[in-house]
Amino acid sequence: MQKPLILVTNDDGITAPGIRNLVSFMNEIGDVVVVAPNSPQSGKGHAITINATLTFEEIHLEGPQKDYALSGTPVDCVKFALDKILDRKPDLVVSGINHGANSSINVIYSGTMSAAVEAGVEGLQAIGFSLLDFAWDADFKQGKKFIQKIVRNVLEKPLPKGVVLNVNIPKLKEDEIKGIRICRQANAKWEENFDERVNPHGKKYFWLSGYFNNMDSGKDADENALLEGFVSVVPVKFDLTAYEYIAELTENFKYES
Amino acid sequence: MQKPLILVTNDDGITAPGIRNLVSFMNEIGDVVVVAPNSPQSGKGHAITINATLTFEEIHLEGPQKDYALSGTPVDCVKFALDKILDRKPDLVVSGINHGANSSINVIYSGTMSAAVEAGVEGLQAIGFSLLDFAWDADFKQGKKFIQKIVRNVLEKPLPKGVVLNVNIPKLKEDEIKGIRICRQANAKWEENFDERVNPHGKKYFWLSGYFNNMDSGKDADENALLEGFVSVVPVKFDLTAYEYIAELTENFKYES
Repeated sequence: MQKPLILVTNDDGITAPGIRNLVSFMNEIGDVVVVAPNSPQSGKGHAITINATLTFEEIHLEGPQKDYALSGTPVDCVKFALDKILDRKPDLVVSGINHGANSSINVIYSGTMSAAVEAGVEGLQAIGFSLLDFAWDADFKQGKKFIQKIVRNVLEKPLPKGVVLNVNIPKLKEDEIKGIRICRQANAKWEENFDERVNPHGKKYFWLSGYFNNMDSGKDADENALLEGFVSVVPVKFDLTAYEYIAELTENFKYES
Repeated sequence: MQKPLILVTNDDGITAPGIRNLVSFMNEIGDVVVVAPNSPQSGKGHAITINATLTFEEIHLEGPQKDYALSGTPVDCVKFALDKILDRKPDLVVSGINHGANSSINVIYSGTMSAAVEAGVEGLQAIGFSLLDFAWDADFKQGKKFIQKIVRNVLEKPLPKGVVLNVNIPKLKEDEIKGIRICRQANAKWEENFDERVNPHGKKYFWLSGYFNNMDSGKDADENALLEGFVSVVPVKFDLTAYEYIAELTENFKYES
């Protein structure tokens, strides 16, 4: 039987430890092709490169996979891989492992998750993985068992059309992780507090800064599952329509006409 | 009575005709403050500036509004305006008018809509406007009546928490526009076809290119409302959880454990 073809990408760049770990975990499951940004792309959301050109290079890293570094965003990587690099449709697209959480509202800022969403838009099975540890030497191996389990599950029982998975892994040893919990996106947000400084020429400049505010206490919210020591899995969709509000909005506009 | 405070932003840059028209329409309704990118930011999605600093300048343009140009993305503009520029919470955030459509799946690539979504995340009323005309000299005035009607409606009857509006306007004269239709996001996508070229040094480079594929025939899909000559209004949410799939996914993982 042909092994599944797995496309791997990320937003921290093709040499980041997170993606190199994910590649090694995927090499045990399928044939792996990596198409990932040649530089860090954190916080790029669903950005695409419209007004600039793209270039790519095959690079040679440890392992049986093929590695291609692209000069674009994570979403560009998925589009480019499908159109220009892969010779057949991948069975699965995995993105990450991100250095840092992409739980709750972070799904909309995350280049890691946007790559997975783009793959979903293309009609493919897709999963984004993130570890709650920003450190470059974070221990990604502790999540291996759970990542491989989720990947094998999706390969055996495909997700419905229009759904991809957002998986976050707590910063714990493998044997301290309590299991996998299917969750909803927690109601949480960043409270901004721009850090104001003055440059040597007397001009003000600012760094985006702030703190994370979890306003959700539900056991089924991803933030809380992570706090309790579970791997959180949120099914994510890209039809953003608030269907539950269409009737009321239609009514409001009738009244106005 | 105090006039409503309206924050205006966009993704085409603070001097684009689309935002200047929107500002003039909003000046007739409320007190307007503009915080918009100092350069074009199309296709930036929900990007934020994490690894670089931001600067801003007050600039002086025609009209009673205040104008601030920021060196960041549309989402940065909303965050920065709320934290550093406005002295009270705005009653409404409007983004656009975008030069070109942001209907159907384009909502996820669009800087215009990401600014509106960010405002929604901040708990504010928000609307993104786009005109189906890429031309720099497009006639934005034809949409004025509909834009002002939608804005007044939202100011009178606020949207529920977690919902913002995605408004697209067909490229028609005002009296040819058939009205406003409340819609869902059409099932449509871009089919990529990267344009391959060779630079003077013999190295390949690529432009993102492709065509738009509308796979939806529903009358209530935004693409089709626009084709029929209506202004489309889609209520958009940023809780991306596919709730309808949580039970099945939970079952799948039980089976696996």
